[in-house]
This record gives sequence, structure tokens and C-alpha cells, in this order.
Amino acid sequence: MEKQKAKIGVIGTGPRGCGLIQTMMRVEEIEIKAVCDRDSGAFEVIFGAFDSAGLKRPEAYTDYNELLGRQDIEGVVIATHWITHIPLAIAAMKAGKYAGVEVGPAASIEECWQLVRTYEETGVPCMLLENCCYGKYEMMVLNMIKKGLFGEVVHCECGYGHDLREHLLEGYPPPSNRLYNNMHRNGDLYPTHGVGPIAKMLNINRGNRFVSLVSMASKAVGLRDWIKKNREPGHGFANYDFTSGDVVQTLIKCAHGETVLVTRNISLPRPYSRFNVVQGTNAIYMEDKKGIYIDGSIKGEVWEPIDDYYEEYGHPLWKEFESRGVKGGHGGMDHLVLEAFADSIINKTNTPIDVYDMAAWMAISVLSEQSVNMGSSPVAFPDFTNGRWINREDKIDSRYSLDEIICKE
Amino acid sequence: MEKQKAKIGVIGTGPRGCGLIQTMMRVEEIEIKAVCDRDSGAFEVIFGAFDSAGLKRPEAYTDYNELLGRQDIEGVVIATHWITHIPLAIAAMKAGKYAGVEVGPAASIEECWQLVRTYEETGVPCMLLENCCYGKYEMMVLNMIKKGLFGEVVHCECGYGHDLREHLLEGYPPPSNRLYNNMHRNGDLYPTHGVGPIAKMLNINRGNRFVSLVSMASKAVGLRDWIKKNREPGHGFANYDFTSGDVVQTLIKCAHGETVLVTRNISLPRPYSRFNVVQGTNAIYMEDKKGIYIDGSIKGEVWEPIDDYYEEYGHPLWKEFESRGVKGGHGGMDHLVLEAFADSIINKTNTPIDVYDMAAWMAISVLSEQSVNMGSSPVAFPDFTNGRWINREDKIDSRYSLDEIICKE
Repeated sequence: MEKQKAKIGVIGTGPRGCGLIQTMMRVEEIEIKAVCDRDSGAFEVIFGAFDSAGLKRPEAYTDYNELLGRQDIEGVVIATHWITHIPLAIAAMKAGKYAGVEVGPAASIEECWQLVRTYEETGVPCMLLENCCYGKYEMMVLNMIKKGLFGEVVHCECGYGHDLREHLLEGYPPPSNRLYNNMHRNGDLYPTHGVGPIAKMLNINRGNRFVSLVSMASKAVGLRDWIKKNREPGHGFANYDFTSGDVVQTLIKCAHGETVLVTRNISLPRPYSRFNVVQGTNAIYMEDKKGIYIDGSIKGEVWEPIDDYYEEYGHPLWKEFESRGVKGGHGGMDHLVLEAFADSIINKTNTPIDVYDMAAWMAISVLSEQSVNMGSSPVAFPDFTNGRWINREDKIDSRYSLDEIICKE
Repeated sequence: MEKQKAKIGVIGTGPRGCGLIQTMMRVEEIEIKAVCDRDSGAFEVIFGAFDSAGLKRPEAYTDYNELLGRQDIEGVVIATHWITHIPLAIAAMKAGKYAGVEVGPAASIEECWQLVRTYEETGVPCMLLENCCYGKYEMMVLNMIKKGLFGEVVHCECGYGHDLREHLLEGYPPPSNRLYNNMHRNGDLYPTHGVGPIAKMLNINRGNRFVSLVSMASKAVGLRDWIKKNREPGHGFANYDFTSGDVVQTLIKCAHGETVLVTRNISLPRPYSRFNVVQGTNAIYMEDKKGIYIDGSIKGEVWEPIDDYYEEYGHPLWKEFESRGVKGGHGGMDHLVLEAFADSIINKTNTPIDVYDMAAWMAISVLSEQSVNMGSSPVAFPDFTNGRWINREDKIDSRYSLDEIICKE
């Protein structure tokens, strides 16, 4: 019997949109009915990919309103420029479509509130497609926490360490979406890859919440240095003063006293890292060591390979994923986050990353900018749940849930 | 020909003082003339050690004024409780003795100013005995920076990660020196092991300075959890609310836009680390990876072992130290920092870690407490040089200097 499929439209067919389309073509629970972009440049390539796969070509639009007007579409995946993510998600919800939104920063706190209000008025779910929440090790550590291995969690670290200098500057002119933001905004403009998984580990918006943050930005010299070393002297940005500090670090305080360090580090040379550290009264995990240390280990005060614990603590969803063959971008987590989105649509449930998660995580970029620009003053987090975080009960019953003790093995 | 020796008195013969005495007994440039403690309990053990080594026993005092009154003593090593470090250093300088002070936090900003004023009035040098400034890898990275390998340094991380739960609670009652501080003060109470070496790498007080910081403390649950797991229910601290957060992180901004993350992490399980990270426009070093990555490495975006660069970049002082046989506590750095202190006394120069360094580094504990207790508000650093940091020229010509390009190989 063929699996039930969520009928999806995709808005934004730039490089990330095309990547998501390719991943979705292999998600059994998804049927792509339509694509949309202001620029029709990528449509032929997309059609070719569908033809090669023996799949029916999606309809293509340059006006997203036409795509949203289709009755058959149940959910929309939005992979446009950052500043259009939230407005398009709002338009999708108003049209009655589940909104699945590629990661990026918020532009203002007000647009986060608009997002929340639209969800509350329409009842249509909205999901940040934060793939890292479905990363193999992020899910494993989440599972370890739920099973009590860490004891009481006290401190976490996370972020995004990725040398994007060439990527940011390639194709210039015009400035890319990401470069444009680095030219004009100073703060952590890309917090969710780190914060998303950690927020789930700390039960944010479900018994806990982010209450305040401070942010500090270093000087911005990495991009200019890279241009000097790699481009002709007359390069248009050879003397540009980039606004965004090379390293931005944010300290977040939670309602129950936990602290979270979030690092953005994208314009200096470095190997990739999401900087994950989770420390509790009984254990500590560190991504960069691929290691875990458990209190009183007989091996002494040394890191043990986290992989040694995979059999016992690997997340059931990931074990099942591996058994059927990992596929999709970024080591499989793109595939899983899209499966999770489709699963919510098919079962007509809320999404495992919901509108309150999305607002709280995306708001960090704005709050971080505020703090940086006020000399690292502390800034209060809005409570997008209006007090319901204390005792929210609307958890979804799904193997993709990130909020429950997951043992549907 | 016998080496010239600095004539030293030691105040404080608790565990750390005794450890320093044992290290100094093997430093050729030091002769210990006298020891002092309010509690004469350790004197017999010390005498025994001198007898075994065939060395002349030092004179022992219970009143430090008597020790400071001796004409033959040129320098004093102070290893008492934290809150007496600065007052005793001031007394030593006033008595005309070089003051060498074991690490610890300041108790107030005012006592840091008193320290600086005393130095300026007496002209007698004062040195924080920050052994980590003479750590093998700290010195190697310093050397790499001076030789330009990192390009422009943008961001550093450092701190003190050491599971001290049992150490803090052993011997109770009464509370130990360290425990006493953790009971009552919330902030980074032990910043100098991390900050000292980093400050030298960033030329703090010599063309650069710390301008502000923010600090955030997690909840404090680690010590109580440890007592619950390891002690009888009736333990005197079983229900004590420790003031000091388990994890305290501090973000420091420098005059030239560099940022420094300082972490204190002593009351939860974890392997030891000083968290060193140094990142510039051309390279990044990470202690926890024992790794370095240099821009455009042909090996791809992967960490290389830092040890692969030791032959080319190892610090000359360390290479020479290894050639004569590393000795002394904490991997040899205790020995080197004491040699450096003695060298300054013998040559009648200023010390390689001077009173301005000491004041700026020790002040972090107080500023961190202020920030934590004001909800992570930013706090301004005092400029203990009164403006002279911009263009200080009083560098010492010594192989122990941490401020020069050192190539006296």
C-alpha cells in the first residue's frame, strides 16, 4: 500500500530551496505539487530532476499567492531570503497551509509576535525546519537526558562555527542574502542550529523558558582580510567595514537557572562545529571531543567516545532511519526534519517544532543585536506563550516529537 | 661556579605553600631563608624535607612581620588564604621585598588600587605567580602569535575546568579557603589561570586593555548533589544553598575589539581543561582538540595536532627547560614561574607579570561578581595604568619575558 503523502508547495528555489526539493523528492510521505520563485531561473533544472526520477512535474509559479490559492496544497516549505521567511509563513497560515520555514534570523520582535498571533487566530501550525534538531548526536544526547544519564542539566553550549568567507563573498555583486545581513547587522544572525536542539533538551516553552541574554561581538576583520588575500585590490568590498563581528557570543539565562552559551563564528578560518556541550550533575558531553564523561567513570577523568554509548542511548528514530538507509542532505537530518513536517500534516497534529519554539529561537538574533548595540546590556526575552509555558499540555504523540520521553522503539 | 641565588621567605605553609617550597628547593636560583605561618603545624615536615635534601633549614616564624623584618630576604612568596594575598603583598613591598603571590581572586577593586599605589610609591616589584603563563602550550601559542602565524588575533577563550567537588568538601568542617568563597560569592572566583596567558597574547596593559565585561552564573546544584551522592544524610552542607553558580562565564571586550570568553567550571563532573582557544585571521588553536588549523591547509578543514608544530614554534624557554629535564609541579610550569620570579630579583628588574597585570587579572573576580549580581549588566574595567597602557615602554629584557618577541635561543 502506498504511503499517504503530504501535498507540498515550495516557495523559494534558490540553492537551499533546490536542495530541499531534492531531499523531499526522496521523502516517501511528501508529494511536491508546486514550486514558486520570483525568478523562474531554476524551474527547468527542477523539472529535469522530476523527469529523471519519473515523478510528475510540479506546477511552477512566480507569484506565491497563486501557489497559496491552490486547494490541493496542504503545506508550504519556505526557503526564500531571510527577511521574507516570517511574512510568507504568516501568508501560508492565513491560506490554511502548514508553514514549514527554512532557518534564519528574525528581523524584529514584532514579526515574531505576528507569527504567534497568526497561529493562534488561524489554528494552522507553523514549523521551523531546524534540521539540527534531528541531528544524530543532538537526538542521542536528548535521549540520554530524558533517560536521566546527565542528572540535572546545568549548562549548555552550542552555535554555528563554519568558515563561510568564500561562500559569503562568491557571486558578488550583488551581495548574497547572507552577506547582506553581515554588512548591516551586528549580532548572532544564525542562532537556531545551535539553540534549537538545546532548547528541546532544556524543555524551553514547556516548563522552562529563556528569560534574558547578553551578547558580545568581536571586531569584524575576517572578511576584509580574506578579500585582501584572495581577490584583486579593486574588489568592491576591499575597504568595506562589515558591521557583523567575526565572533559573536551570547549568554542566555533560563527560568530554572540553566545557562546557555551560543557562539556564531563564520568569518574566520576554522573547522566546522556546532559547539555542542551539555553538562549536568552526572555527565558532560562535548561535540568537539566526540566525547562524554560520566561521573565516577572507572576510566578516570577522561573523555570516552560518545559512539561507545550509541547502542544503549542512540535515539530510536535514528536507529530506525539507519536501518532503512540514511539519505538526504547534511548527514540525513534534512530528510528527517522534512519527514517530521509531513508527518504532522498527514496526521493533522501540531508540529514537533512549533510556533512558540520558532519565535523564541528566531528572536535571539534580534535580542542579540539589541544587546551588542547597547554595549552588551542584558535584554529580556519576550514570553511568546503569554505564560502558558509553565504548564503547557499540548504535546504531540509522534515518533518525531522532541518533547517527550521517546521510546517508541 | 655556583649560580647567584635569590633569597626568599615563604608566607603560608598550607598544602600549596608546601608544594611551592618543594618546587623552590629544586630551583637553582632560589635559596629559602625563612618560612612563616600562623599555624606552625607544617614546619617539622618542611625541616625534614630540607634535612633530606642536605639543605640548611629555613628559619620559621608565626608572625610575618618578623620574616619581613629580616635584612637578608629579598623576595617573599605568599601562599596564604585568598583574602590575605594582597594585604601581605603590600606589606612585603613596603618592607622592600619583591612580592610573589600565589593565584586567587581579588576581594575588592580598592585593594587592587592599593596594590598598584604601593608599587608606584615603593618601586618594589610585585608578581602574580601565574604558573599557567609558563605552560608549555600557552607559551608555544604566544610564540606562534608573536611570529605572526595567527594573523590578527580576534577572539580567545580560556578558563578553569576542574572537578573540585571532593577537594572543596574534604576536611570539612571547617570550610576550606576555596569552599568558603564558593559559599558566599557568586562570580568567577578563579579567573587568572585562563586569563593570564591570554592577556599576554593580547598585549593587555601594553597597547591594549580590557575595557568591559559581562558575567553570567548558572544555578548552583553540583556541590549539594555530590554531598547527597557521597556523604551521610546528616552532612553539615546537605541542605546548604551554595552561592557560587556551578558554571560562570564571562565575556571580556578589549580596547582593540578582541573578545575573550572566560569559563569557571569547578563543581560538576568533567575532565580537566583550561578551555584555551585562540582564533585569528589566519589560524585557530584549541586546547581541547590539542589541535591547530591554519587557513588554507592542504589537509582540508580538519584539526592538525599542535605537537606537529612544536619543533618550529615551541617556545625557546621550554625547549631549553626540556633539554635540562623538566621538573616541578603542574607539568613544570610551577618551576618556571618561580625561576622567572628569582631571575627578576637577581637581576633587579621588574617582574614579567607585573603589578598592573596582577591588578587587571585579579580584578576580574570582583567585576564578574558585580555583573552577576546586577543581572549580567556590563561592568567597566578600571585602567590600573592610568592611561599608560597605550604606550608603556618599561619592558624587561629577560628570557622569561612574556611581552617581547622572544628568540633568545
